[in-house]
Amino acid sequence: MSKDSIGVGLMGLGVVAGKVAKVLMDKSRNLEDKVGCPLILRKIKVLPEDLSRPQAKQMDSELFTTDDEEFFHEPGIDIVVEAIGGVSPALEYHKRAISGGKHVVTSNKELIAKHGFELLTLARRNKVGLQYEASVGGGIPIIAPFKHDLVANNIKGIFAIINGTTNYVLTRMAKEGMDFTTALKRAQELGYAIKLLAIAKQDDDAIEVRVHPVFIPEDSLLAEVDGVYNAILVEGDLVGKVLFYGEGAGAIPTSSSLLADIISASSAVFHSSQRPLGLKLRNDSVLKPMSEIMTRYYLRMTTTDRYGVLSQISKVLGDHRISISSVLQKETNIVAKTAEIVIMTHPAKEKAIQAALSEIRELDIVKQVNNFIRIEA
Amino acid sequence: MSKDSIGVGLMGLGVVAGKVAKVLMDKSRNLEDKVGCPLILRKIKVLPEDLSRPQAKQMDSELFTTDDEEFFHEPGIDIVVEAIGGVSPALEYHKRAISGGKHVVTSNKELIAKHGFELLTLARRNKVGLQYEASVGGGIPIIAPFKHDLVANNIKGIFAIINGTTNYVLTRMAKEGMDFTTALKRAQELGYAIKLLAIAKQDDDAIEVRVHPVFIPEDSLLAEVDGVYNAILVEGDLVGKVLFYGEGAGAIPTSSSLLADIISASSAVFHSSQRPLGLKLRNDSVLKPMSEIMTRYYLRMTTTDRYGVLSQISKVLGDHRISISSVLQKETNIVAKTAEIVIMTHPAKEKAIQAALSEIRELDIVKQVNNFIRIEA
Repeated sequence: MSKDSIGVGLMGLGVVAGKVAKVLMDKSRNLEDKVGCPLILRKIKVLPEDLSRPQAKQMDSELFTTDDEEFFHEPGIDIVVEAIGGVSPALEYHKRAISGGKHVVTSNKELIAKHGFELLTLARRNKVGLQYEASVGGGIPIIAPFKHDLVANNIKGIFAIINGTTNYVLTRMAKEGMDFTTALKRAQELGYAIKLLAIAKQDDDAIEVRVHPVFIPEDSLLAEVDGVYNAILVEGDLVGKVLFYGEGAGAIPTSSSLLADIISASSAVFHSSQRPLGLKLRNDSVLKPMSEIMTRYYLRMTTTDRYGVLSQISKVLGDHRISISSVLQKETNIVAKTAEIVIMTHPAKEKAIQAALSEIRELDIVKQVNNFIRIEA
Repeated sequence: MSKDSIGVGLMGLGVVAGKVAKVLMDKSRNLEDKVGCPLILRKIKVLPEDLSRPQAKQMDSELFTTDDEEFFHEPGIDIVVEAIGGVSPALEYHKRAISGGKHVVTSNKELIAKHGFELLTLARRNKVGLQYEASVGGGIPIIAPFKHDLVANNIKGIFAIINGTTNYVLTRMAKEGMDFTTALKRAQELGYAIKLLAIAKQDDDAIEVRVHPVFIPEDSLLAEVDGVYNAILVEGDLVGKVLFYGEGAGAIPTSSSLLADIISASSAVFHSSQRPLGLKLRNDSVLKPMSEIMTRYYLRMTTTDRYGVLSQISKVLGDHRISISSVLQKETNIVAKTAEIVIMTHPAKEKAIQAALSEIRELDIVKQVNNFIRIEA
């Protein structure tokens, strides 16, 4: 039973839903390749105030409805994408969609946390999918690895660094009079960073679940997780420690997860067979020759101890349009009458640096090029 | 068309294959829950010398065969797990299994790198799965995230830190006279770490692929990846940067990936429907009360400037069987006549530390407990 197209109904038109709608339209050819048939956005359920948002202005006004009945009676919707958030009215929308035999994809954290078990049970009974990758960790892949890669493991613990929610820390500071600046300074003296961590641990008879600020050793990988990035560390009995890291919030990364689930649900609707979701097979890629790559370079060389050494070397680099980012000239070795020069370049073509190196090696003042190493930022 | 059991045929009996066989037996109940029916290990194709390995001695000798014909004619094998490595004879084994309508799961890097396209095409034609998560990055989940989570993205670049392959660096040092110790020292002075990196970048008309040592900024997440750990950083147009980190080699993590693919293939055989691989729904977990958690603690307090302050505080901790890991006593504030004490404890129960804190707050010599923060190692 194969279909001509998959119909998508979108609930909500916030920044995440707006991005999903845009990608469904802009990447339609690409998505069709992945699913096997076109994905058609058939209806968007909005609130009256959504219609004045910039993302609404770029779309056909025929797509919009503010009426629940119109949305749920729209023919040809196979997948409902709920991106309105909160429990009410989202819970009723989920139940109505699932009971109507539609697959549901959601980014709704609160709903999945509070009613996930009930909704997954209902979805199984109705033989439809309920997918919620986008509700956990924004753009960070975590639900799919749990369903697939980690499935043979007994999970011993999950540790999630939550940077977004500094609100929590601020509240605690206000409530409990904690002076975090001083505390952090002292902790750093002892080799720790502070982080807000969500922790789940499984032992033989109970699960331990908590969220609070903690100090972690500064040389741990989690201590490096900063800014908009979040990380989830999972410990399994076979796999040991695995860490997933990415943007834990934000409209575009979250839309990436929603779209992954939409494609997966679409593929399930399109293919009656169990064919795993296709990595498109292709064998026609063109490989870039090494000489064409652009990167930064690190050069270390031993030179004679004479005036003008640096100017000669930098002239060769300049001739090949390679610009210097930093230079370290080490003190002269008085006995050997040699000096050491370390140069970091700005991005340059491999071809240019190779040509420059040949010339540098020929210079009378250069005894040896000791190192030539590429730099990735 | 539902089956009573899924038959697994294993090729090879190295450390990875040995671990897979062991888990198939030790976790049989658990795996049955996940797939929906038992997984039965029906035959193991070995070389004569494999029979003297320790992992062979723990298994029923009836399972073993050294004969290809016997292995491929064994009835009831649905899934062939190839863990012998190398191209020959593995390529012929793959073709024979796939053409015979069997699903194939492999950890064979070289075979997938050299013949993956051909084998995937053959598998599609025969409507069976070829799964190879274990052939890439050991225990690190990467193929499943590509198939699912990243599927809506145009992939701009992949950067993989390879720690295992120091062999490559050593070869380069020997061949090209590179002096890495000195180079590394100079790079560190400029704020860089050295790493061996595999890089793939896609631009409009070509793919750039290379493997070589590079310097990367010391404050980058990749710079922290050390020891047995590898990391794969993927950059997509929607998701931004996501990083997958774990043990990139080793028998047990690699067996975790092989087993994930075996469970997924088994589930595909068992269920004719498209039901996504089950996260088992359960609602019966027991939550551990906060008072029962064990962790280390950071305490910072302001005390009066008197003799015996530290001994009074450490007595209270000792009374509650909390042992001290480190103490930092800051210089006295002469004007305010106060001192500052920072204590890190060894792991202790939350209940004990809360009781100790109540008593510490009552001590005359303690003016204020400024911070109380949990530590996760």
